[in-house]
Amino acid sequence: MFENNSRTEINELGEFGLIKKLTENIILKHQSSILGVGDDCAVISAEGSFRKVITTDMLVEGVHFDLSYTPLKHLGYKAVVANLSDIFAMNAIPEQITVSVAMSNRFSVEALEELYEGIYLACDKYNIDLIGGDTSNSKQNLILSITAIGVAHENELVYRNGAKENDLICVTGDLGAAYMGLQILEREKRIFIENPNVQPDIQHYDFIIGKQLKPECANKELAALKLAGIKPTSLIDISDGLASELFHLAEQSGVGVIIYEEKLPIDQQTFDTAIELNLNPPTVAFSGGEDYELLFTIKQDDFEKIKEIKDIHVIGYCTPAAEGMFSYTKSGTKLSLEKQGYKAF
Amino acid sequence: MFENNSRTEINELGEFGLIKKLTENIILKHQSSILGVGDDCAVISAEGSFRKVITTDMLVEGVHFDLSYTPLKHLGYKAVVANLSDIFAMNAIPEQITVSVAMSNRFSVEALEELYEGIYLACDKYNIDLIGGDTSNSKQNLILSITAIGVAHENELVYRNGAKENDLICVTGDLGAAYMGLQILEREKRIFIENPNVQPDIQHYDFIIGKQLKPECANKELAALKLAGIKPTSLIDISDGLASELFHLAEQSGVGVIIYEEKLPIDQQTFDTAIELNLNPPTVAFSGGEDYELLFTIKQDDFEKIKEIKDIHVIGYCTPAAEGMFSYTKSGTKLSLEKQGYKAF
Repeated sequence: MFENNSRTEINELGEFGLIKKLTENIILKHQSSILGVGDDCAVISAEGSFRKVITTDMLVEGVHFDLSYTPLKHLGYKAVVANLSDIFAMNAIPEQITVSVAMSNRFSVEALEELYEGIYLACDKYNIDLIGGDTSNSKQNLILSITAIGVAHENELVYRNGAKENDLICVTGDLGAAYMGLQILEREKRIFIENPNVQPDIQHYDFIIGKQLKPECANKELAALKLAGIKPTSLIDISDGLASELFHLAEQSGVGVIIYEEKLPIDQQTFDTAIELNLNPPTVAFSGGEDYELLFTIKQDDFEKIKEIKDIHVIGYCTPAAEGMFSYTKSGTKLSLEKQGYKAF
Repeated sequence: MFENNSRTEINELGEFGLIKKLTENIILKHQSSILGVGDDCAVISAEGSFRKVITTDMLVEGVHFDLSYTPLKHLGYKAVVANLSDIFAMNAIPEQITVSVAMSNRFSVEALEELYEGIYLACDKYNIDLIGGDTSNSKQNLILSITAIGVAHENELVYRNGAKENDLICVTGDLGAAYMGLQILEREKRIFIENPNVQPDIQHYDFIIGKQLKPECANKELAALKLAGIKPTSLIDISDGLASELFHLAEQSGVGVIIYEEKLPIDQQTFDTAIELNLNPPTVAFSGGEDYELLFTIKQDDFEKIKEIKDIHVIGYCTPAAEGMFSYTKSGTKLSLEKQGYKAF
């Protein structure tokens, strides 16, 4: 169909290489366009010193979600959370979303209502207005595209590029749970396909399956930081996995990182399930995606203030860029951090 | 998969019925959310008395476009134009877009670059910044989702609901061309499938094929209105066809309409092609979609000013709602306007 003489496969570049190639020549023309491609959100001007931040995500059935184990209500909820998480990752407050849905006639009106029930549940939880959208047909799959809009004072916005040498590296909540939940759901799906009479064995995995199917935003932790008078120096949400986000943050800030594996917050159920499936728990914490926790850096001076805050964990610190990206295992072995690719939700 | 006891098919409700069902219970919570679902764009607060307007559209290969006769560059251009048209339809100025693309590995990087070439061409033409987006995989098809953001002073915004009895009904440009262009492209595709050695016969259809593959926004006409000191009382863009948009405008404004078929602007090539394909040209003008012209109403007092403006045509006037929606044929027959469904791009 395409008559180009040369053909470059998309996976040769990867998602981030592709975005870079497609957007590297952009020169912003409008004064109102304050930040374009490259952070969790774009930034445009608003009232006085306030800024609107905007993010968008498209989710395709069979690629980003599997309806054989994802209830539509959960899908709607999670899709909103994934977008709001990008708004919080600018240290902004989300206020509006638009929702576009394309679906084939295999979906009924009642099925769509379930999807929207989840969307509205997330809107209620996070105080969001659904202000627009679009519904249309698709040939077969369900496709969801959500755009979220938030607001922040320009002094409150936190970008990916502000980390400095010696800053402490922190994460909220716990890591790897959503990924382990996905592994269990996929395992039970395979078992069900092989033998539809076997009852799914998921009661021991409630926490990790909950993190996979119904994640939440780490907005309480952001509020606690603000209350404690701490403004992160850099901030990103963990949608593609900690290692991938560390690379974004370090590259854009021009720093290196040292991470201590023993400091990684891993829930007991995540840990036990990793062992059960012959996976190394720290690797799961580094490369598992979809936790929607936040990764951020703070000045060393803020350490005394932060250590009292619930659900925030200091996992390492920033080094000069030339020193690279490393982790220390519990036994003290120094490992080079890998850009562990995890295909996110 | 879905365990609902009752099942309502989506096509029982239609697109607009479905949107209504899914969004009718929304109560906007934020002061910054000025207008939600129901017009060409949502409206949120911005600097002082200025407003940001936001619109979003999702396009699915095989449903909204056919790559067998749509060059990717044209697709990118048209997708942007379709969104900007919604911004202009609020009488606002578009400034930013975000672009999300999902594509399977049948597309090469070069193919995506072609798509983006068209996107950037439209951005240059209409002075737009691409500020964000998302690329991901799809199983097979190409899916595009664009969100556009514009700005206007609150006094300049024009909604769908402002038409009053006796207001004049106007359209820009000409109608039905994009639809007839599509008919020719579909005909040539069928011929090609039957006999790949037949050369496509499209040289006599350059205007209508151009309107189908590379439409433009009617922003010049809006600028001319402003220069003439005319503010429309209501405004909507013609993406689903004149008849469908007339129903939106009349329902939301609480008026009826009388349209004179002889006043409908129909290009000669559109007219001739309609005759060739045994279609009634006024029907094509009423129900053909994707022209991206504007439909608007003005006060009768503005008639003297508007009649000098190029490419603006008065096609009828508003009546009391109780009088309904009618058109007069050239021979003077009064016909009830039908909600002629055209599945838009």
